[in-house]
Amino acid sequence: MNLKYLITGGYGFVGSHLVEKLCNDGHDLTVMDNLSNGQLSNLDHLKNKITTYLANVEQIQSVHFKKTFDGIFHLATAPRSSSLKDPMRDIETNCKGMIAVLELAKTHGAKVVFTSNSGIYGSAQEGGPINENSINNPTTPYDANKLVSEYYCKIYHDIYGVSSTVVRFATVYGERQQVNERLNWRPLVATFVKNAMNGEEVTINGDGEQTRDLIYVQDAVQGVIKAMKSSINDANIFLLSTNTETSVNQVLHVVEAIAGLRMRVKYSEPLPGDIRKMRYSYDKAKVKLGFEPQFSVHQGIERMMQYSRNKAQ
Amino acid sequence: MNLKYLITGGYGFVGSHLVEKLCNDGHDLTVMDNLSNGQLSNLDHLKNKITTYLANVEQIQSVHFKKTFDGIFHLATAPRSSSLKDPMRDIETNCKGMIAVLELAKTHGAKVVFTSNSGIYGSAQEGGPINENSINNPTTPYDANKLVSEYYCKIYHDIYGVSSTVVRFATVYGERQQVNERLNWRPLVATFVKNAMNGEEVTINGDGEQTRDLIYVQDAVQGVIKAMKSSINDANIFLLSTNTETSVNQVLHVVEAIAGLRMRVKYSEPLPGDIRKMRYSYDKAKVKLGFEPQFSVHQGIERMMQYSRNKAQ
Repeated sequence: MNLKYLITGGYGFVGSHLVEKLCNDGHDLTVMDNLSNGQLSNLDHLKNKITTYLANVEQIQSVHFKKTFDGIFHLATAPRSSSLKDPMRDIETNCKGMIAVLELAKTHGAKVVFTSNSGIYGSAQEGGPINENSINNPTTPYDANKLVSEYYCKIYHDIYGVSSTVVRFATVYGERQQVNERLNWRPLVATFVKNAMNGEEVTINGDGEQTRDLIYVQDAVQGVIKAMKSSINDANIFLLSTNTETSVNQVLHVVEAIAGLRMRVKYSEPLPGDIRKMRYSYDKAKVKLGFEPQFSVHQGIERMMQYSRNKAQ
Repeated sequence: MNLKYLITGGYGFVGSHLVEKLCNDGHDLTVMDNLSNGQLSNLDHLKNKITTYLANVEQIQSVHFKKTFDGIFHLATAPRSSSLKDPMRDIETNCKGMIAVLELAKTHGAKVVFTSNSGIYGSAQEGGPINENSINNPTTPYDANKLVSEYYCKIYHDIYGVSSTVVRFATVYGERQQVNERLNWRPLVATFVKNAMNGEEVTINGDGEQTRDLIYVQDAVQGVIKAMKSSINDANIFLLSTNTETSVNQVLHVVEAIAGLRMRVKYSEPLPGDIRKMRYSYDKAKVKLGFEPQFSVHQGIERMMQYSRNKAQ
């Protein structure tokens, strides 16, 4: 069925992959982005097939959309990395942005899929992966604001009947993910791949034994679409993850193996609010949404490196 | 010891009682208020003893204070009653306001006492009072924003070492509490007392069997000051309550008994997001802060009615 979707943050890393997939599936797409981290070039190949509004998500209510949406994928976010430096900006984008999206959804009768963040849990407890019932322990304003946004979804469902599903991403990586020095945003895999391509020294914060649950972007997109298509509409929360820990040092070794080189490494101070151990169960998403990740870290990074090599040529 | 305190929302209902008590105890007080619900007349008798700044709390960082504070009592808030109608305003005051206070505390090395709200729990579970470990279930943006503000306190403690203690008020009532129709704020006891004084019809939302844990303002002030004086500085949360349920209908009967009259009552629709049952344990505050409420509902309402009669003369 051809549906009308709005994608906030659609020019960003995950957003652009989602737009590509939805476009291939024949949907009618409107993309909203303020290009703070997104790039027009990410969707250059689709520019004649989508409608674009360049605006901050918290101003969504002042945009005059020419159609009524069936669904809103809300991916726009201020990044975790600049949250402590600019907590007010974080509140603008992450708290007010969520309310603006829910108000729009209320008006349009649209379903919302909100991409939240597994950082909400803080450091993983010992003895087994985290799941949706684990205790929340946000360690930055970003994480706290993602959590409160999930509550906004629940409140708008309970009071106004606005349909929504919340997904909490593990650490997403893949093609087009950017290092953004201005936003202090240096995604782990993208940074290492860039370092390898440019022959740069790698900086590791802390001892490198902190772990991430790395989910390849195509797997994340699969989960987000399943969340939209699901009949679950009560702001229920689903982890989209791989249930696998990979340390920062292991990521380095995978990149080195695929690139066929040995990289220079500098170990520096741990980052404030950094999380030591990440491993998340996706059992609930598997059972309720039919979600299952398809790509290993090695496969995902191989595709990223191939993409970077093609681009460099 | 003579200490320098900043009180946000100090011209408000609870704030003005707190300022009175701290002033009597000989402290050096600065009060910040935007008079959205506070009134200058509340502290008219102390105007030569305190320093006043009229500003929104989220703009606190642009105020040039002439002294360094030892402690900040953060009471300024946008009210629960207008939260659904104006969720963006709620975020400005309640989320950004908290960050602004914590940033100021970081600069001054001041301790923060943040007055949160027991509405965060939503409707009480069956079988016993709620305590600090009970599950959160915020039912309005206001409650969600109070919760995220508590997390901000914890984050600022863990990352920057900012000292704070969080208190979650049960339903506070007492002299000077105002019905504010513009903000849609009709505090239960104050409304009934006003109705009784003016011979007005009483409107009860729902069947009147919803309960509140009513804490008299002098008891709430006692708890807030104990929280500031405590050596507990890690954003620990304390319920300030009475562990006693009083239904809306019972409040009506107490007011009628004290006023010596029978009031006309209209039962109307329940309010969206209203909480059915409130009863909160103050065991933790008793053990860790030495807090114990002194006033029964009858005693508290009697003092309120006496105050209103004196004012009317």
